[in-house]
Amino acid sequence: MAKDVTELQKLISQMTLEEKAGLCSGLDFWNTKGIERLGIPSVMVTDGPHGLRKQQGDADHLGLNNSVPATCFPSAAGLASSWDRDLIFRVGEALGTECQVENVAVLLGPGNNIKRSPLNGRNFEYFSEDPFLASEMAANHVKGVQSQGVGTSLKHYAANNQEHRRMSVDAVIDERTLREIYLASFEGTVKQSQPWSVMCSYNQVNGEYASESYELLTKVLRDEWGFEGFVVSDWGAVNERVKALAAGLELEMPSSAGIGDAKIVAAVKSGELAMETLDLAVERMLAFIFKSVENRNPHAVFDADKHHQLAREVARESMVLLKNEGGILPLVKSGRIAVIGEFAKQPRYQGGGSSHVNPSRMDDAFVELQAVAGDAASFLYAQGYELESDDINADLLREACDTAAKADAAVLFLGLPDRYESEGYDRSHLLLPASHKALIEAVAEVQSEIIVVLSNGAPVEMPWLHRAKAVLEGYLGGQAFGGAVADLLFGEVSPSGKLAETFPMKLSDNPSFLNFPGEGDTVEYKEGLFVGYRYYDKKEIEPLFPFGYGLSYTEFEYSRLLLDQTRIQDTDTVQVSVTVKNTGSRAGKEVVQLYVSDVESHVIRPLQELKGFGKIELQPGEERSVTFTLDKRSFAYYNVQLSDWHVESGRFKIAVGSSSRDIRLSTELEVESTVKLTTRFHRNTTVGDLLANPLTEEKAKSFSSVFGLEDALGDNPEMLLAMMKYMPLRAMIGFGQGKYTEADLEADLQELNRLAGQE
Amino acid sequence: MAKDVTELQKLISQMTLEEKAGLCSGLDFWNTKGIERLGIPSVMVTDGPHGLRKQQGDADHLGLNNSVPATCFPSAAGLASSWDRDLIFRVGEALGTECQVENVAVLLGPGNNIKRSPLNGRNFEYFSEDPFLASEMAANHVKGVQSQGVGTSLKHYAANNQEHRRMSVDAVIDERTLREIYLASFEGTVKQSQPWSVMCSYNQVNGEYASESYELLTKVLRDEWGFEGFVVSDWGAVNERVKALAAGLELEMPSSAGIGDAKIVAAVKSGELAMETLDLAVERMLAFIFKSVENRNPHAVFDADKHHQLAREVARESMVLLKNEGGILPLVKSGRIAVIGEFAKQPRYQGGGSSHVNPSRMDDAFVELQAVAGDAASFLYAQGYELESDDINADLLREACDTAAKADAAVLFLGLPDRYESEGYDRSHLLLPASHKALIEAVAEVQSEIIVVLSNGAPVEMPWLHRAKAVLEGYLGGQAFGGAVADLLFGEVSPSGKLAETFPMKLSDNPSFLNFPGEGDTVEYKEGLFVGYRYYDKKEIEPLFPFGYGLSYTEFEYSRLLLDQTRIQDTDTVQVSVTVKNTGSRAGKEVVQLYVSDVESHVIRPLQELKGFGKIELQPGEERSVTFTLDKRSFAYYNVQLSDWHVESGRFKIAVGSSSRDIRLSTELEVESTVKLTTRFHRNTTVGDLLANPLTEEKAKSFSSVFGLEDALGDNPEMLLAMMKYMPLRAMIGFGQGKYTEADLEADLQELNRLAGQE
Repeated sequence: MAKDVTELQKLISQMTLEEKAGLCSGLDFWNTKGIERLGIPSVMVTDGPHGLRKQQGDADHLGLNNSVPATCFPSAAGLASSWDRDLIFRVGEALGTECQVENVAVLLGPGNNIKRSPLNGRNFEYFSEDPFLASEMAANHVKGVQSQGVGTSLKHYAANNQEHRRMSVDAVIDERTLREIYLASFEGTVKQSQPWSVMCSYNQVNGEYASESYELLTKVLRDEWGFEGFVVSDWGAVNERVKALAAGLELEMPSSAGIGDAKIVAAVKSGELAMETLDLAVERMLAFIFKSVENRNPHAVFDADKHHQLAREVARESMVLLKNEGGILPLVKSGRIAVIGEFAKQPRYQGGGSSHVNPSRMDDAFVELQAVAGDAASFLYAQGYELESDDINADLLREACDTAAKADAAVLFLGLPDRYESEGYDRSHLLLPASHKALIEAVAEVQSEIIVVLSNGAPVEMPWLHRAKAVLEGYLGGQAFGGAVADLLFGEVSPSGKLAETFPMKLSDNPSFLNFPGEGDTVEYKEGLFVGYRYYDKKEIEPLFPFGYGLSYTEFEYSRLLLDQTRIQDTDTVQVSVTVKNTGSRAGKEVVQLYVSDVESHVIRPLQELKGFGKIELQPGEERSVTFTLDKRSFAYYNVQLSDWHVESGRFKIAVGSSSRDIRLSTELEVESTVKLTTRFHRNTTVGDLLANPLTEEKAKSFSSVFGLEDALGDNPEMLLAMMKYMPLRAMIGFGQGKYTEADLEADLQELNRLAGQE
Repeated sequence: MAKDVTELQKLISQMTLEEKAGLCSGLDFWNTKGIERLGIPSVMVTDGPHGLRKQQGDADHLGLNNSVPATCFPSAAGLASSWDRDLIFRVGEALGTECQVENVAVLLGPGNNIKRSPLNGRNFEYFSEDPFLASEMAANHVKGVQSQGVGTSLKHYAANNQEHRRMSVDAVIDERTLREIYLASFEGTVKQSQPWSVMCSYNQVNGEYASESYELLTKVLRDEWGFEGFVVSDWGAVNERVKALAAGLELEMPSSAGIGDAKIVAAVKSGELAMETLDLAVERMLAFIFKSVENRNPHAVFDADKHHQLAREVARESMVLLKNEGGILPLVKSGRIAVIGEFAKQPRYQGGGSSHVNPSRMDDAFVELQAVAGDAASFLYAQGYELESDDINADLLREACDTAAKADAAVLFLGLPDRYESEGYDRSHLLLPASHKALIEAVAEVQSEIIVVLSNGAPVEMPWLHRAKAVLEGYLGGQAFGGAVADLLFGEVSPSGKLAETFPMKLSDNPSFLNFPGEGDTVEYKEGLFVGYRYYDKKEIEPLFPFGYGLSYTEFEYSRLLLDQTRIQDTDTVQVSVTVKNTGSRAGKEVVQLYVSDVESHVIRPLQELKGFGKIELQPGEERSVTFTLDKRSFAYYNVQLSDWHVESGRFKIAVGSSSRDIRLSTELEVESTVKLTTRFHRNTTVGDLLANPLTEEKAKSFSSVFGLEDALGDNPEMLLAMMKYMPLRAMIGFGQGKYTEADLEADLQELNRLAGQE
C-alpha cells in the first residue's frame, strides 16, 4: 500500500489547495486528517517513549485523561543507565508491538535533549548529558519501535533543555556548542536510525523559533543529516504557520481548528508561499501515511506478562548501585528486614506529563522483596513519610524507628514525589523532601545497616549519604520497579547500570548554574561545550558520583589495550580492543567505556570525550575482548570557519575504563588531518604565528631587527620573546621608526602568503 | 600660559596641515612634537604608575635602559590592598613632585584594568578584581599626581586583561558585563578625577581595536563620562591611524617616523577625514601642552629620604597578613631568628616591563629586621634557593635546615622571581618555583615556627600553607619592602591590608579558567559578570583567601548599623553608618566594607557587590563610626535595553563586615525606581507575565478557559499551573480549537497594552 513518488504526486495533483493545507495539521489531538474521496486515511500518533499512552475518551493535549493500559518501562534516564543498545532495542520492539495492537502509527518519542541542568523537570525523559551515549541509546530505541512497522518521533528538536518558559525562551548557544553537544544527540540518532518523524521543540534557538528555523529543520536535519521523514510540531509549538511550513515543518499538532490551514491557503493564494513548498510537505505526509498503512498489522497481539518480565529485566539493568560499604549488598535471604518508606508500596515509577502511562501491571516492592527472599527472611514495614506532603510526620518517624530497631537491616525507599518532577516546570533545588531526609536521619539513630533505594528522574544532592551503607539509584523504574529492586538487593543479578549523567555534590557545581534558567526569555549557554563531565573534569570539581560510574557485586580487570594502527589519517578508522576479565566470584556485566582526548590543541576542548562503550556479561573468571571502532568524528571538533568537523593533526589519547573517573588503561594514537586549514596572513598576523609555521619561520626571523628589540634583550628575555611573539606585522611600521613602510608590509604579506601556499 | 579656546583656535588657524598632523604623534619615544615658530613646546610623557621611569640615554619602548633614580612605591596590587584613599593620594603627590623635578608632563598611569584571571602577567600593575575598589584607588592616585600639576594617563582602556596576544586578541564581552565590570573601573576614575589623558589598549574589544573604537573613545569616554583630556595610544597600539583619529585617539605613540602623520594629511586631502576632526584633536593636544607648561614648577625638589619613608609607610599598609596561627606574630624582639631565602637580601619589589623603576634607595630585609628588632635578638641567614633557577639546590636546602634548626623561629622569604611576572606574557600556573616549595617543606622538618613572607604580584596557590604558622603577603612592596616587613613582623604597626582580589584554592577555580587566554585571537568572557568574588560567592566555591580578607594584631567589633532612611527613591541617597570598636590590646586599622545585594531580581545579579569602604585607625578600646553614602549606582545594574543604569524596585540588603566572607551586620532598605520599564506585550508574551502584572492580572485570568486546562487540573496541579504560566498568548489560537482567533488576539493585545499604560 506504500506509494512511490509518482503515485504520490499523482494523488497530490488531484487534491484541492484546501485539502493540501488540511494534511498539514491534525484532525484533533492525536490524528492526522484523512481525505476519503482520495483514499487517504487518518492515522494516529500518540505519546510515550517508555510506554504507550493512548488516551481513552476525550483527548486533551496534556493527556491526563486515562489511557489504555500499556507496559510502563523505565523512563529514559533509567534506560540510558543500562548502556545496553540491544536491551533498548528490545524495549523499542515491545513498544512497537503494543502500538500495533492499538493501531497507533507513530509513538511520539524518544526524547533526546541533552541534560544541561539536573533541574530540568523533564530530564527523566532524556537519556544523557553526553551526546554520543544519548544518540546510541535513542537510535536503538527508534530501531526497535520501527522494526515493528511503527514510526517514532525524535524530540524535542532542538535545545529544549528546560521547562521554564519553554514556549517563549530563546536558547542562545554558540555554533560549535550547538553542533558538538545539543544537535549531536539528534544527529547521531537520525543518521543511525532514520526516525519516521522528528518533533520540533517549543523554544527559540538563537533568536528563531525551532518551529520556524529553516536552518534546523531543512538545512541541518535534511540536507546535512539526510533525514527522510516529516517534522511535526510539539503540541502548540507553531507560532507562524506559514513561516513554519516554509522552514520545513509539515505537520502542525494538534488541530488548530482550521486556522493554520486557512493561513496556508491564503499564503499560497497571495504568492507568499510557493505551491511547490506545500506540495513537498504534502508528499512527505502522504508518504508517511501510506507507509504506516502498509505496515499495519491487524493481527498484532502482545503478552502483557512477558512485557512485564521484560520491564523487570530492563529495570534491573537500569539501576545504578552508587554505594555499597562493606559489601552490605547483596542481602542474605534470612533474618529480619525493615522496609521503610511509602514508595515501597506506592512506587514512583514514572514522571509526569505527556509521557504518563497507565501501567498494565504494577509491582509492589514490599511484596516482591518477600517473594524473592523466600521464607527464611521476615519483613516489617513502616510508612515513614506521607507521599503528598514534605512535612515531617513525627508519628510516622517514630513508627519507622521502632520498626528499624527491630530488624537486622533497613531498606529505605526514598526519592522525589510526583510533584517534584514533571513536564512543564523545573526544580529549583536538588534536595529530597525534608520528610525523606528526616526519615533516614531518624532511622540512622537506631539502625546502622541502612540501604537506600532512590526513586527520582534526575540527580539529587545527598547530604545524608554517610548515613547509608548502600544506595541503589532506581531512577523511575517503570511498572516492574519493585521486582527489579528485589532482584538486585538479594543478588539475583548483579547491578550493572552506570550513570549517564554526573551527580554533583551541590547544585552550584553544575556548569549551567550561573545561567539557568536564564533571564526573562533568554537563556545563554555560556558554559559552552563544558556540559556534564566535560565541565567537572576540566574544572577539577569532584562530583558526588561521576559520569559512567556504577558498582557491581563482582570485579573486573582490564588488560591488553590494543590499536590495530598507531598512526592514521582522519579518513581512516582504527580498531581498539581491550580485554576484560571478571575477577570476582559472581556473574556480572561491565560497561566498558572509551574516552578520547586531544593531547594538544589550538582550540578549547574538553579533557576527554566518550567515543565508545560496550556492555558485556562475564561469568566468574571469564574474560572477553571488547572492540571499538573509531573514525574521524571520534577525534574531531566542529570547526565553525569550515562549517564542518575537523581533526587537528597530532596525538590523541585513547583511554578505557569503568567510569569517566576510573580509567584503567590508556594509549596514544597519531591522527593526521587530510584537510588543510588556510588562513591568509594579514597586517595583524603575529610574528609568533609566523615563527610557528615551518613555511614562514625563516622569513619571520628576519623581522626581529625591524622591531629593534635585540639591544634590550639582556634584562628580561622572557618578556622580549613574548613581545616579539605577540607583535602584529603592522607594528613594524611604528616601531621601525621609518625603516619599514606600508609598502614593505604589503610585499612581505604577499611573500608570506606565497611561502605558506596561500596565494 | 594656559590658553583659552579662542587662543588655541587662533593658533590652529596658523598651522599647516602637516603641522597639525604632526601634533598627533610623538617626536620620539617619550616626547610630543613642538612647533618652534608658533611657540608650541615639546613635552615629555613617561612611564611608571608606582614610580617615575624616565629613561636616560637612548630610549626604547620597552624601557629597559636605565632610568633616573626615583622612589619605587609598592605596585598597584599592593597599593590597592591598603584600601586607603588618602595614602594613595599621598603616593600620587610624591610621584607628581618627582615628575616636576624631572620635567615630566604626564606620568603614564595608573593602570586600572580588572583582574579577570590571576594569570595575567601584568596584574601587579592593576588594582583589583572589583571595579568599585579599583576606581576609588585609581581616582586618588590620579588626584594626587595631578595635584602637583602633572598629568596622568589612565590605562589600558579597555578590556586589556591579559598579555597573551595582547596586540591582536579580540576580547568578546557582553555589553552588560563590559559596563558593570570592565568599563566601570575606568568610569569611576574618569568621573572622579578627570585624568589629563587616557591610554587606549592594544587589544580589540568586540571586534574593533580599542584604538579605533568611536564607541569607547568618544561616545562612552567623552560624551557619557565627560572626559576632557586627550587619548594616547599604548605604545604601538595604532592600527589604522586615520580610523583611530576619527574614533577619538589624538596622540599616536611612539613616533611612527612620519608615517602616521602622512596618512592623516592624505586623508584630509582626499576628504576621508574632516579637517574639523583633526582641528579638534589638535586643540585637545594644545590644551594639554599649554596646561603642562603652565603647571611646570622649575623649582621643584624632593627629599629622597622622606619619599623612602613614605614608601615604607605605604608598604606596611599594603601588606596582607593571611595567616597567624597561635598568634605567632608579632615576633618578640629577642631570641634567635633564622632568615631564609634570597629574597630577604635581593628583594622582588616590583614587576617587569614598562613600569620598571630604578629605585633611589633599596632596603635589605635582613638588615631592616635586625635594625627593628634591636640587640636582644640575633639573626642567622641562609640563601635557601637560587634566584635565577627553579631547580632545587640540595646544598642550599641543607644549609637552610641547619640554620633553621638553630633558631627559635624561621622567617622564609618566598615568592615569584622576576621571570614569572612581567608585562608581555602571562603565567600558566599559580605555583611558586619548585625550589621555594622544597625550601619550606625541608625547613618544616626541623622547625615548627615558620613565618612566610611572600613577594609576588598576584595570587599563588599554597599547597604548603599548613607548614607555615604565619603568612604575610608582601606583594611587590617597592624599595622599602624590607623595612615594612620588619615593622610588621615585630609589631611596630599592626597589619591592616586587605586583599583586593580573591586567592583561589586552585587555578581551575578561577571564573575565567575555561576561556583564558582564549582561542587564537579571540577570548570570550563567558563568565560574564561573575568575576572575582562575584563568582566564588555565587558558585559557593571556598577560596583560599576571600576578597577583602586580611588579619590584624588586634580585633574589631561592629555595632549600630544604621540607615538614615529605610525607603528611598533611586534618585535619593542614603547614609549608612556603623560603629567599629578596637576590642584588642593594640592599636590597629580596620577596613570596613559595605556590600549591597538585591534581595530579589528579574535579572541575573551577583550575590553581593562592594559599594563602600573606609579605613579607620583605632587605639585599644577606641570606637568610631564610619559613614557611607549610597546612591542609585549602588543598587543599579546596567540595563542594555535602556542603555542606562537601572534599579529594580524592591528590597536591598546592606551588609557591612571585615571581608566579603566575614559580614558582621546587615539590614534592609527599600528602593523604588523612578524609571518605568515598558515592554509592549506581543503574541508571545506569556500568560504568567500578565498574571504577575497587577494591571493585567484580571484580564489574564480570563484566558484559562480558552486553553481548556481546567478539566485536567486534578491530576497534576503544579504542572498545569506551570503550563498556563509559560503559555504564550498566541497558543490560545491553537489550543482554543477555533474558539479564539488571530483577531481576538489582536484585540486582546490592544486591551492589555492599554491596561498596562503601554499604548
